[in-house]
Amino acid sequence: MENHPYIHWQTELEHLFDPIEAELQNASAIYILTDENIQPLWMNTLLENCSILQRAHIIEIPAGESSKEWEIASQVMQQWMEDQADRHIWLINFGGGVITDLGGWIACNYKRGISFVNVPTTLMGMVDASIGGKNGINFMGNKNMIGTFQEPDALLIYPGFIETLPEQELLSGFAEMIKHALIADQALWEVITELEEIDAHRLIPFIKRNIQIKNHIVFEDPFEEGSRKLLNYGHTLGHALESWSLAQNINWSHGYCVAQGMKFANFLSWKKGLLDEKTYGEVNEFLEEIYPLSTLPAISSLTPFLVQDKKNRADGLQFSLIENPGKAIFNQRIEWNEMEAHYSSWCQPIH
Amino acid sequence: MENHPYIHWQTELEHLFDPIEAELQNASAIYILTDENIQPLWMNTLLENCSILQRAHIIEIPAGESSKEWEIASQVMQQWMEDQADRHIWLINFGGGVITDLGGWIACNYKRGISFVNVPTTLMGMVDASIGGKNGINFMGNKNMIGTFQEPDALLIYPGFIETLPEQELLSGFAEMIKHALIADQALWEVITELEEIDAHRLIPFIKRNIQIKNHIVFEDPFEEGSRKLLNYGHTLGHALESWSLAQNINWSHGYCVAQGMKFANFLSWKKGLLDEKTYGEVNEFLEEIYPLSTLPAISSLTPFLVQDKKNRADGLQFSLIENPGKAIFNQRIEWNEMEAHYSSWCQPIH
Repeated sequence: MENHPYIHWQTELEHLFDPIEAELQNASAIYILTDENIQPLWMNTLLENCSILQRAHIIEIPAGESSKEWEIASQVMQQWMEDQADRHIWLINFGGGVITDLGGWIACNYKRGISFVNVPTTLMGMVDASIGGKNGINFMGNKNMIGTFQEPDALLIYPGFIETLPEQELLSGFAEMIKHALIADQALWEVITELEEIDAHRLIPFIKRNIQIKNHIVFEDPFEEGSRKLLNYGHTLGHALESWSLAQNINWSHGYCVAQGMKFANFLSWKKGLLDEKTYGEVNEFLEEIYPLSTLPAISSLTPFLVQDKKNRADGLQFSLIENPGKAIFNQRIEWNEMEAHYSSWCQPIH
Repeated sequence: MENHPYIHWQTELEHLFDPIEAELQNASAIYILTDENIQPLWMNTLLENCSILQRAHIIEIPAGESSKEWEIASQVMQQWMEDQADRHIWLINFGGGVITDLGGWIACNYKRGISFVNVPTTLMGMVDASIGGKNGINFMGNKNMIGTFQEPDALLIYPGFIETLPEQELLSGFAEMIKHALIADQALWEVITELEEIDAHRLIPFIKRNIQIKNHIVFEDPFEEGSRKLLNYGHTLGHALESWSLAQNINWSHGYCVAQGMKFANFLSWKKGLLDEKTYGEVNEFLEEIYPLSTLPAISSLTPFLVQDKKNRADGLQFSLIENPGKAIFNQRIEWNEMEAHYSSWCQPIH
């Protein structure tokens, strides 16, 4: 992809690994990290189509956010030590955001760093999680508390993988596409709000544009010192909701939580006079239709997670807000008591 | 220090933190990571002299290599989460190589990275461990299996700290000075072999030169793809001996193990015709006098550690060897069976 030489878009599965064939041939061993959902769906097809992977060792972990933990990471590294894996092995992260976040972190740390490749299988992975170098594990019930920044050696995108995605997963990734549109691309916003239906077939044409948006923002500010914070739009409340739901064993997807977070951010944008009432109504109506508001927890249940959020400081929360579809601003500080008042008037949380 | 703006040499303790005073004032909190040996010796003096540290929180961990573990790292991060520490805290690593390796790794990973400062208190820390960005923890009994590369935001050197070092610790650091001389500086080799005695007073004048040597090598090849491997001279066998002695609860210092490793590397250099017999004899005699050979373990006890060594590949070991004091070469491959034969003829290991 132009300006991003490590990203390769490929519509024919048998050519997916062509860009790194030589490197994989020279690797001392190849490992594929995947989860129990992807394995039965795609592993045989992948191995049949990509002969370079014939000698790969498969590491299968349980699906879901609860695998993004030290325990799983250390088990993978323990296996490598038992296999006497040196630092010339290559790791292929084959799955969604959990796999690429976890695998990236392991690769970054094992023997001070091995080569790794992201092969996202979810829409969320393709348009967001596998791009931008953020990796990490959850710790003490909080998302991505331990992690680093490290770009993969290659990001291989085969859009066909999303054709087997469950609808909930597709909608989860679509939330990040909506985010990209709202913070950076009014034209994209206008097109995606006109979609007749939300299915893989209709979304695939927009994946490339979303990769470009994310990459452009990340390239300008790789370590999130400024403009990369725009990507946190919807994630201040979203992450807290997700951590809370994880602790409650409620199965809310990342995208669903981010959608609630975007609705709340828009509410703040309106209340602060950044977004006019009519546009606020239109945007939130669109979000509400796809991601209807559940009964949310009281702010006191979310505060412990908000406090730990990397984005926030001891003296207040940090929001990214929008002024219009396609135009966002970052570093919008909200004091803790202000947060409580706005949150309560936005929704009717359970107490 | 010229060409290395983040390194500051200071002979007056009260000015040690001057270069980062503004940054520390803006930090959301300051933490000092230290160990139970340094704390009683230096903490009060440090706090009395450096008023900027008055508000610092002290984290004291047990001294020694066994603290370089996930368990200790996760305890530190757990404390920070309980303290609601955001990513604008600063960490000061105040101690020897264990503290700077462990603290650097924690700082690099907590909330995807906080600012950190190395303040080495040992000769080893000043001339080697705290420079060059390598950090990490031990895992499954192997040294530095999990780690990253990340330079500190500042490296503050106050040579006076080594005046309270036990002799064994001083000799441990001196081994790395010998290494620097043998791989890169014949003039330094000639001066340090003429020293009447090895004490803090006589070694302090050489610390700056050693920092320059290490920094120059690291600057040329930060991720150890080529010439940085020169710094591994003495460390292929040295690390294995150290890991073995750690497993046996024998108290061999890092420098003592590296000294044995240098003697063995010199033996290989001689056997391979790189180093002439007379020079080999002179160099090893000097090393033997300060670091006399103990009864070493059989190669079969060392192989498990050699296999895990980041430097080695499945098809053989990687050595850095010398051709003369001041001149070394890297990527010298020794096959496993060759290693066994040379090791046995070099020493009389226990079986």
